[in-house]
Amino acid sequence: MTGRSAYDVLVVSSYKPLPARLLADELIGRVSVITEPQFADFYGPEVRVTTVGSIDDLTAVRDAALGIFAAGRVDAVLTPTEAGIAASGLLRSHYGVQGIGYETANACSNKYVMKRTLAAAGVPVTAFRPVYRLAEVPAAAAELGWPVVVKPTFGGGAFNVVELHSPGEFEAFAADRRSTGLRAQRTPLLVESLVEMVAEYHCDAVVHEGEPSFAAVSRYHGPVLRSLGGFIGSHPLADAHPDREAVVALLREVLTAVGLRSGVAHLEVFRTTAGLLVGEIACRPPGGGLVEGLALQYGVDLWQAFLETSLGLPPTLRLRPAGHLVVNSMLPARPGRITAITPAEKLAALPGALQVTMSRRVGDVIDPDLYSTSHTGVVLFAVEREEEIPGRLRELAQLYQLDVTPSPGLGEGRGHQLRRVP
Amino acid sequence: MTGRSAYDVLVVSSYKPLPARLLADELIGRVSVITEPQFADFYGPEVRVTTVGSIDDLTAVRDAALGIFAAGRVDAVLTPTEAGIAASGLLRSHYGVQGIGYETANACSNKYVMKRTLAAAGVPVTAFRPVYRLAEVPAAAAELGWPVVVKPTFGGGAFNVVELHSPGEFEAFAADRRSTGLRAQRTPLLVESLVEMVAEYHCDAVVHEGEPSFAAVSRYHGPVLRSLGGFIGSHPLADAHPDREAVVALLREVLTAVGLRSGVAHLEVFRTTAGLLVGEIACRPPGGGLVEGLALQYGVDLWQAFLETSLGLPPTLRLRPAGHLVVNSMLPARPGRITAITPAEKLAALPGALQVTMSRRVGDVIDPDLYSTSHTGVVLFAVEREEEIPGRLRELAQLYQLDVTPSPGLGEGRGHQLRRVP
Repeated sequence: MTGRSAYDVLVVSSYKPLPARLLADELIGRVSVITEPQFADFYGPEVRVTTVGSIDDLTAVRDAALGIFAAGRVDAVLTPTEAGIAASGLLRSHYGVQGIGYETANACSNKYVMKRTLAAAGVPVTAFRPVYRLAEVPAAAAELGWPVVVKPTFGGGAFNVVELHSPGEFEAFAADRRSTGLRAQRTPLLVESLVEMVAEYHCDAVVHEGEPSFAAVSRYHGPVLRSLGGFIGSHPLADAHPDREAVVALLREVLTAVGLRSGVAHLEVFRTTAGLLVGEIACRPPGGGLVEGLALQYGVDLWQAFLETSLGLPPTLRLRPAGHLVVNSMLPARPGRITAITPAEKLAALPGALQVTMSRRVGDVIDPDLYSTSHTGVVLFAVEREEEIPGRLRELAQLYQLDVTPSPGLGEGRGHQLRRVP
Repeated sequence: MTGRSAYDVLVVSSYKPLPARLLADELIGRVSVITEPQFADFYGPEVRVTTVGSIDDLTAVRDAALGIFAAGRVDAVLTPTEAGIAASGLLRSHYGVQGIGYETANACSNKYVMKRTLAAAGVPVTAFRPVYRLAEVPAAAAELGWPVVVKPTFGGGAFNVVELHSPGEFEAFAADRRSTGLRAQRTPLLVESLVEMVAEYHCDAVVHEGEPSFAAVSRYHGPVLRSLGGFIGSHPLADAHPDREAVVALLREVLTAVGLRSGVAHLEVFRTTAGLLVGEIACRPPGGGLVEGLALQYGVDLWQAFLETSLGLPPTLRLRPAGHLVVNSMLPARPGRITAITPAEKLAALPGALQVTMSRRVGDVIDPDLYSTSHTGVVLFAVEREEEIPGRLRELAQLYQLDVTPSPGLGEGRGHQLRRVP
C-alpha cells in the first residue's frame, strides 16, 4: 500500500532480507533496498534494488543511497542483520533520517568500541585489548593473561571467533588455515580474557524513549546440554529468578552507555564466579529461534517492535504471557550435501512441541562459511518446569537425524567458527 | 621528539596541512598523515604519509588508517580543514580514539544535518529544505519562498554557494556552467531562505568538558566596507556590545545540540530584523586571518587549543587582552597569473599595522577553483575605536595593488563562489 499512513523505507541488508511479513506490513509503503549483487533476487519487482560490492563499504552505501533519496522520501532505514548495522547508522546520520545514528550503531556492532564504551561507563566487561593484526595477539594476551578469545571487531554468529589458551596454541593457529579469516580482516581484532561462565543469558528488549518497555531474560542451554550434539537454544528465566532483575539493571546501564534510546536490543550477559559480565549488545532482533520463542512465550513480536521503533512510532506491545515455559532449540547443521534429514512432521511428535520450522532439506548444501545456515531448523516446545528441559532435549536429539556427504566444490571454509550465538 | 610526554597523532587533511608550528609542538611525537596524492609533499620524510583518492571517501580513509594503527599507538586524529572533518570523526568512532566522534563531526560539517539538529534543539536558524539534485531546488524554494541560498551539504569557503531570487534566475543558473559544481555534488544540497542580514558575527570558542572556557565574538566587515574591493575581515566586539552575550548564549545552545564537549568551535551568527539566527558551526579554528587576529587581541592561540583539546588535555589559555581593537582583513585575490602585488613592507606602512602576511607573490597563479587561495595575504592592524575601521580600510585599499594576466591553461573554474567566509 502507498496510502497516507504508509512509510517509505530503505532496507540495507545482505545475506538475510527483512522478514517478508514486515515487507508486507501495512505500515510499509515504498521499499528500496541496498544489498550485495548475490542477494538482489531476494526482492520482488516492486522493490527498487541498488547493489554495492559490500554493504560494509560506507562510501559505496552512502553514494548508492543518494539516488534513492533523490527518488523520494525515506522515512526510515532498516537493517535486519548484523552486517550493515554501521552502514545503516551512517546513512541515518548522513542523510538526517530518524532512528539509530552512526555513533550508537557503531557502539552496538563494533565490538572494540562497544567494550570501550561499556568499560568507560563502568559496565562490567571482560578485560580486553584491540590489536590491528593477528601477530599482535600474543603481546595482548600476555598483558591480559592467557587464555584469550580473539574475534573480529565486526561480525555475528561467532564466525572467526577463536579461543586460544597459550602462545603455543596461538602459533599453531596462526600457521593454520583456520586463521585465514582472522588474517584477512580489514578491521581491528579484539582480544579478550576468556572467562569461565557459570551461566549465559540473553536479554531481549524493546526500547522506547530511552526506557525498556519490554525486557525478557533467557538462559542459553548450558555446556552439558550442548554436548548432546550442538542443540543450541534457550528458555526465558522465571520472573523470580535472582539474576533476572540484575540482568535488566545491566541492560539499562548498557542502553545509556551506547545511547540506544529507541529500538530492539539483544544483550548477552554471563554469570561468572566473579559476578555478572556484559558480553555484547546488538541493536536488532536476535537470530535462531529466539524471536519466535519470545513471541510464543510473551506474545511480543520483536520484528514488529523493530519496525515500529525504526519508524519513530511507539511499539504496540500486547503482552500475552503463556502459562508454560517456551524452549527454543536450533537443529545443528554440518557442512556438506544433505542426504537425509528428519522431516518437520516427525520432530513435531516431540512432547510439548509448539512449532517446528525447517530451513534446510535433502539436497541442500551447507557451506562451512555460511554461519547463518549453521542450523537446519528451529524447534520450539513447551515444558512446565525448567527441570524437564534436559530430558526433552535428549528426546529431540534422538528424533533428529542429519546425514551429509562431502559436496564437490565445497572447500574447507575460509574461516573458523567457534560456536553459534544467535 | 618521541619522549614519554609526546603524543602520536594521525592527521587527516587535504589542501592545507596542519600548521607547521603544531607539527613541531613538543606535545607531538610521531606523525602519520592520510591525505590526497597531490598534497603528499606537504610533509617531510619523518612523517608517514598514506594517500587516498579523496579524504571524503570514508571507506578508503578507514581502510588506510588500519595500517597506521597497526604501526603504533594513535593518541589523536587531527583534521585542520573543513574537508575531512566527517572522515576524521569516523576514524575516531571506528577505532575508538578520543575526541570528536562521527556524530558530532557530521553535525559540525554536514550543513543539512547541522540545520536539522539545531532546529530540533530550538536554536533559531533560517528555514531550510534538503534536496537531492539541482532540479528539485524550485520546488523547495516555492515552499520556503524565494529568494533562497543553495549550497552543498559539505564544503567551506562558500564554494558552490549561490543566491537565487526567482524561478527564472534558477533556470538561467541551472543551464549555465556556473552550476557545474552543484550539479556534480554527490551529497544532498541545502536550500535555505535568504535572509536580510543587519550584522554578521563569528564566535570563536575553546570548549573543554562541555563549557566554553574562551569565547570571542567578532563582527565581519559589513557590505559597505566589502564593496571597497572585497576586503573581507572582522574585528572583535567590545565586551559591552549588546549582541555579545546573546551570541555566546547561542553558542552554548549550539554546543549542546551538536554534542561538542571539547574542541575549538567557530560559529557564524547573523542579526536580522527578526533577531539573531545561527548560520553554521565548525569544529575547527577558522581560516583567513582570524586565528592570528584573535591571538593579537586576546593572547589566545586557537591552534594550540585545538591540539590540546584533541589530545584530551585542558587548554592552556593565557589571556593577555590587548588595549586596542585588532582588525583583520584579507587581501582580495583574482584568478590569473600575478604580475604585480604590493609587497608586505609597503602594506606595513598602514597606520596601526601589526602584522602583514603575504601568501601570494608575483608569478603565482590563482586558480578560480582554489577557494582557499582567494586571498593573497592577511593584514592585521590596530585601531582605538570601531569608528576608525572604515577609514583605515580605505587606506588599505589605496595601498594594495594586485595585477593579474589570464594564465594559459586556467579554465573558467568548475564551480561558483559566492563570497569567502573564513
